[in-house]
Amino acid sequence: MLKAKITRLSVSDVRFPTSLEQHGSDAMHTDPDYSVAYVVIETDGGLKGYGLTFTLGKGTEIVVCAVEALSAFVVGTCLEEIVSDFRAFYRLLTSDGQMRWIGPEKGVIQLATAAVLNAVWDLWARAEGKPLWKLLVDMDAKKLISCIDFRYITDALTEQEALDILLKGQEGKRQREEQMLKEGYPAYTTSCAWIGYPDQQLKQLCTEALKDGWTRFKVKVGVDLQDDIRRCRLIRQIIGPSNTLMIDANQRWDVGEAVTWVTSLAEFQPLWIEEPTSPDDILGHATISKALAPLGIGVATGEQCHNRVMFKQLLQASALQFVQIDSCRLGSVNENLAVLLMACKFQVPVCPHAGGVGLCELVQHLILFDYISVSASLHNRMCEYVDHLHEHFKSPVEIQNAHYMPPKDPGYSTEMLEESVLQHQYPQGDVWQGHPGC
Amino acid sequence: MLKAKITRLSVSDVRFPTSLEQHGSDAMHTDPDYSVAYVVIETDGGLKGYGLTFTLGKGTEIVVCAVEALSAFVVGTCLEEIVSDFRAFYRLLTSDGQMRWIGPEKGVIQLATAAVLNAVWDLWARAEGKPLWKLLVDMDAKKLISCIDFRYITDALTEQEALDILLKGQEGKRQREEQMLKEGYPAYTTSCAWIGYPDQQLKQLCTEALKDGWTRFKVKVGVDLQDDIRRCRLIRQIIGPSNTLMIDANQRWDVGEAVTWVTSLAEFQPLWIEEPTSPDDILGHATISKALAPLGIGVATGEQCHNRVMFKQLLQASALQFVQIDSCRLGSVNENLAVLLMACKFQVPVCPHAGGVGLCELVQHLILFDYISVSASLHNRMCEYVDHLHEHFKSPVEIQNAHYMPPKDPGYSTEMLEESVLQHQYPQGDVWQGHPGC
Repeated sequence: MLKAKITRLSVSDVRFPTSLEQHGSDAMHTDPDYSVAYVVIETDGGLKGYGLTFTLGKGTEIVVCAVEALSAFVVGTCLEEIVSDFRAFYRLLTSDGQMRWIGPEKGVIQLATAAVLNAVWDLWARAEGKPLWKLLVDMDAKKLISCIDFRYITDALTEQEALDILLKGQEGKRQREEQMLKEGYPAYTTSCAWIGYPDQQLKQLCTEALKDGWTRFKVKVGVDLQDDIRRCRLIRQIIGPSNTLMIDANQRWDVGEAVTWVTSLAEFQPLWIEEPTSPDDILGHATISKALAPLGIGVATGEQCHNRVMFKQLLQASALQFVQIDSCRLGSVNENLAVLLMACKFQVPVCPHAGGVGLCELVQHLILFDYISVSASLHNRMCEYVDHLHEHFKSPVEIQNAHYMPPKDPGYSTEMLEESVLQHQYPQGDVWQGHPGC
Repeated sequence: MLKAKITRLSVSDVRFPTSLEQHGSDAMHTDPDYSVAYVVIETDGGLKGYGLTFTLGKGTEIVVCAVEALSAFVVGTCLEEIVSDFRAFYRLLTSDGQMRWIGPEKGVIQLATAAVLNAVWDLWARAEGKPLWKLLVDMDAKKLISCIDFRYITDALTEQEALDILLKGQEGKRQREEQMLKEGYPAYTTSCAWIGYPDQQLKQLCTEALKDGWTRFKVKVGVDLQDDIRRCRLIRQIIGPSNTLMIDANQRWDVGEAVTWVTSLAEFQPLWIEEPTSPDDILGHATISKALAPLGIGVATGEQCHNRVMFKQLLQASALQFVQIDSCRLGSVNENLAVLLMACKFQVPVCPHAGGVGLCELVQHLILFDYISVSASLHNRMCEYVDHLHEHFKSPVEIQNAHYMPPKDPGYSTEMLEESVLQHQYPQGDVWQGHPGC
């Protein structure tokens, strides 16, 4: 199967009209239409690989255009050729002498790289007949390392250090794998408290979630302080003092403002404040981290951190206490591996960003690998979960008692239902007919 | 003229086959085809505005796609409406609740924002009948401040501090304007030593440049140390000990490697090492700056610094000794104003990036404004110059005795010759017919 030659890459603009019900609304993204640039690669052996990157509606067509530009690097290549030197292939896509100017490794072109390489990883896992997490867990340490581009991060993590981490991760690996298959990976929920939800809805959703076994809850904040106080008080009352509360400002504040605002919410004992300011502001996050440490509130960020160089600095500057990797913003599994290993070296827990469309499906593979092969710890670790749009996937996530149960189907859980893709294609799909603005 | 309503925005993919002669080649961009996404906005009054962003060939079509997505914010708006609250208009483009996900303020979408807003600034300057630098120099300080989005930078520069800088800049402003009109703004040349040029060509070009009055020279380095030593020695021999030499690695190295490599070139006394590592690596640049300070070598960077938040941190971390703004990567004049003012506060000289297509034409306006109204100093300051492709512009730069002479035509010098645009449109233009890969 590894001999398969990639003969075709197609990409679709697939959008869900989530803004109609304020699902996913936050302080900066008030009307998201959860969307994906959806990639299918076909091979001469008949095997297909599926990949995606997540977007919020408008602009998806730009990412689609970028995927089309990258397809020239993929079509005509053998899977074996790619994975025999995946680092070189990664760099081929990210460091083309002409294309890198419009990045490099950031924004649209990096999102497109993620979509394309997610499809390649899906293809690889399918070719090996394993779910992606298992492909990674079983992979030889040196082979794993050979997938990572260490350019620009060797001052924080050398290849040898990365290898040492993976070798150390061998200890107890089988037991952790068994544990995951039995118990699953702990999750927290963001589904209860989007910023557009009225209090009554929030109350009802939290109460139901508690009954379903959820113990960790995230609230969107940042538009109005008095609203935030009221909402946080309400949720803390419902979930009680021992359950976990996190707050998320989605980049709403300047540095000083972030410190003042979060201090006003300290009485509700949030574990972390997520995205207090610009995702690019490493030093700002460091200042906020330092100011909030005495209050016992950590800083979490990463869903809009665009590459390993930014994560490296967030770690070097002690600018975050929770690393939130994203399966669709970083350059696929390759770059996520680099971040997981750096986080391990700097002893900062990884708590992935998920939600949107497909992000839960994808990132569960990475965090399972992190626990089984890298961090070997569940302390202060959990993976975001949002209960949306899973029904459009062929192998949707399975949550049991607020835990992600390890996927069993071969691949990266990236395949969408054909019918869903057709109906939601923008602008020609049925769902978008007669929709305002389409 | 300010009442003009924008009725149409069109954008073209315009590429020059510069890779054929290795013009513009460096350690990371070995075969650039200098290109632009070229924007024309039309108004109901007949006045037009021209804008562009610079690219390296492949991927220009992606930026064009992003410009098209942004045009919805522009078409139907009055110029007066835009400039009466330019900060709000800037944020409309950069912070749309759906579109910001594919940035925010970085990569493709920020390049497209630059192209669109450069056209708006051109239109504004034309409506006022002034070259852009003069529009800025004559503008009321409060009006200037109202064009800047201070979000995420108030911990480094408040509106009041920015205002104070501009008010202080009033002293001696008229004399400096007269001085510029007479002498022009000092430039340095990068035309002599692209990495793809053989020694003989390099020697000849340097010798000619010296005759033409050039005293500051930049050499591309970073592929092979022995080559770099040979090339630097050669140039230093030709230009002598008192002229200025700068070296530019175009992001080739990791942090440790940068320090070692540049130390090996210290004997040639470069004023700065430009882009030693990843443009995203603020802390890396700080480490390199600290290591090279005892050798008297500064760090310069900025041409791929994607927004004001990144420049803020480079300044806060003392990570650079020369700020290299770019007229087409930052969000047009609006964001460049923020950077010029921050650089002034941190007392770091601005030495703009130029070259490519149109970058010299545009950035000369910004650096003239910087000298006349902000920094009031020429110490360690100069603007890059590359002698390429100026013939395609309606108001090309005028260099006299290695100085940029202030443009006199109304606008931002962004208008290209219609014939040039037609011939170089990709892929349908005459120049690209029968070209390999087209």
